[in-house]
Amino acid sequence: MSDGSAATKTSGLDDLLACGRDIEPLMDRILTERPLPSNLREAARYSLLGPGKRLRPALVLLSAQAVGGRSEDARSAAVALEMIHCFSLIHDDLPAMDDDDLRRGRPTLHRHAGEAMAILAGDLLNTLPFELLAGDPILSRRGLAASAVRELAAATAEMIAGQVYDTLPRFPEDMEPLDRLRLIHRHKTGALIRAACRLGAICADPETDGHRRAAKLEALTGYGEAIGLMFQIVDDLLDVTASTEDLGKSAGKDQAQGKLTYPGILGIEETRRHIEQQATSAIGFLAPLGDAGESLARLVEVLADRRR
Amino acid sequence: MSDGSAATKTSGLDDLLACGRDIEPLMDRILTERPLPSNLREAARYSLLGPGKRLRPALVLLSAQAVGGRSEDARSAAVALEMIHCFSLIHDDLPAMDDDDLRRGRPTLHRHAGEAMAILAGDLLNTLPFELLAGDPILSRRGLAASAVRELAAATAEMIAGQVYDTLPRFPEDMEPLDRLRLIHRHKTGALIRAACRLGAICADPETDGHRRAAKLEALTGYGEAIGLMFQIVDDLLDVTASTEDLGKSAGKDQAQGKLTYPGILGIEETRRHIEQQATSAIGFLAPLGDAGESLARLVEVLADRRR
Repeated sequence: MSDGSAATKTSGLDDLLACGRDIEPLMDRILTERPLPSNLREAARYSLLGPGKRLRPALVLLSAQAVGGRSEDARSAAVALEMIHCFSLIHDDLPAMDDDDLRRGRPTLHRHAGEAMAILAGDLLNTLPFELLAGDPILSRRGLAASAVRELAAATAEMIAGQVYDTLPRFPEDMEPLDRLRLIHRHKTGALIRAACRLGAICADPETDGHRRAAKLEALTGYGEAIGLMFQIVDDLLDVTASTEDLGKSAGKDQAQGKLTYPGILGIEETRRHIEQQATSAIGFLAPLGDAGESLARLVEVLADRRR
Repeated sequence: MSDGSAATKTSGLDDLLACGRDIEPLMDRILTERPLPSNLREAARYSLLGPGKRLRPALVLLSAQAVGGRSEDARSAAVALEMIHCFSLIHDDLPAMDDDDLRRGRPTLHRHAGEAMAILAGDLLNTLPFELLAGDPILSRRGLAASAVRELAAATAEMIAGQVYDTLPRFPEDMEPLDRLRLIHRHKTGALIRAACRLGAICADPETDGHRRAAKLEALTGYGEAIGLMFQIVDDLLDVTASTEDLGKSAGKDQAQGKLTYPGILGIEETRRHIEQQATSAIGFLAPLGDAGESLARLVEVLADRRR
């Protein structure tokens, strides 16, 4: 870590994720300029441009910097990730799924615009990212567009599988609860977070040596898997310890629904130890990136301590 | 047209669409080999491998032949189109949308496997096509994968917009009914059918001269738009004239729901005239393709006369 780390460590989650919020005007422009029925556009804007942490786009852009690349080269990937994340939230909230009324402190999209529109706006936000990546001029010129699409589509399919594991489970009877939970988390949240880190590297790494490129991608893959699991364990913990007001979504819901969670299986203290473990593991993976990985390391620390 | 046309004209719709059904083993393999929760796999298989005309994959493969290409080169595109079509049917049938119990003579997926699973299986079938095209080795080697993804994603977004125009319309008050209906049809059915024809050319055209490539693509774009509109006008007509048993879905439903349809606006005779018009137009667009376009021309004739 560089000498500036003591000072910069004090910056909170919002500062670190500021780069993620920088893509909001681009998301706005994409939805504004594209020919769409006006009500479909409004529904997609309501969800995509509503309040959000922008964690996944920030991970894309910070990962691009961490491999020594220009974050501009990964902007389409950052938008694409946030769109997929947003689509997944819209569909997860539907009455036939989690039946949630509140998301990020506002009515969920089906509450705001009706269920049919929520299904269709979700579908749209599961489609535009692939058009965006496939048509990105920088990625196309460098022959990377198809790889980026493939990475994102594979992660999206894993995320959808994670929803099935979470809400319509069909596990072998002898599978341990913690193994079931890890399988759910790895798919449902982990796949997109890992893809965010990998896409930053895939889209922006200026390295031409294949071995060095692969080593950086491997580092970010490990980092992404560790921070993804950590993020979800913290989420499980916040559902128990935080208030609905802090979360902007219903607290205590996992417990009320009898869902598998880390605190439910391991208790709060042991859950905190697992968070520490994943944090240490995530930071360890960054070693090959040297000083360039510093922001990603700080992100681990603030995400481990987050309150919402 | 070649001398064989008199004999071959007698072959029916099923014969012409046989090539579309040839991709069923490939669709089966893709869903079988991919790691997926078993119930999600079963749901996707139920819908994707159930009975279907396979019109869109047939259009992809016949268009590949019509530009003098090898249909193998367009097989991934054929599968991708059928997956997107299938996803759109699954979501359209949902209770919050058209609320249909019957599709292709069998219970709709949400009736068979529940609403949550239908939403998620639809999402999966809106994701896998992009992974498939982006990862296709033939398309990647020829640098065509990103173009194919872009074409399909743009058409999928148009199809979703068409669902909104159809079910949640917000048109200018002075817009004529027939203009509204054309806007709906062009998006809801037309976009994917046009994309099927274009993708056959994009993926398989062996032509290296850019101008000749563009001319063939333009011919198939015009053909696709005309046959797409024709197909949907025939659909409107069958809803009035055919039985539920013949259709494998509820007949008379458009009328019962007060939907805009060609027979509703123009009457049956004038509707038949519009079908003839679009058929003539579609066949006209094929002229630059010469004899290679013969199967596509025959397809127009049998689709104009179809009974289901």
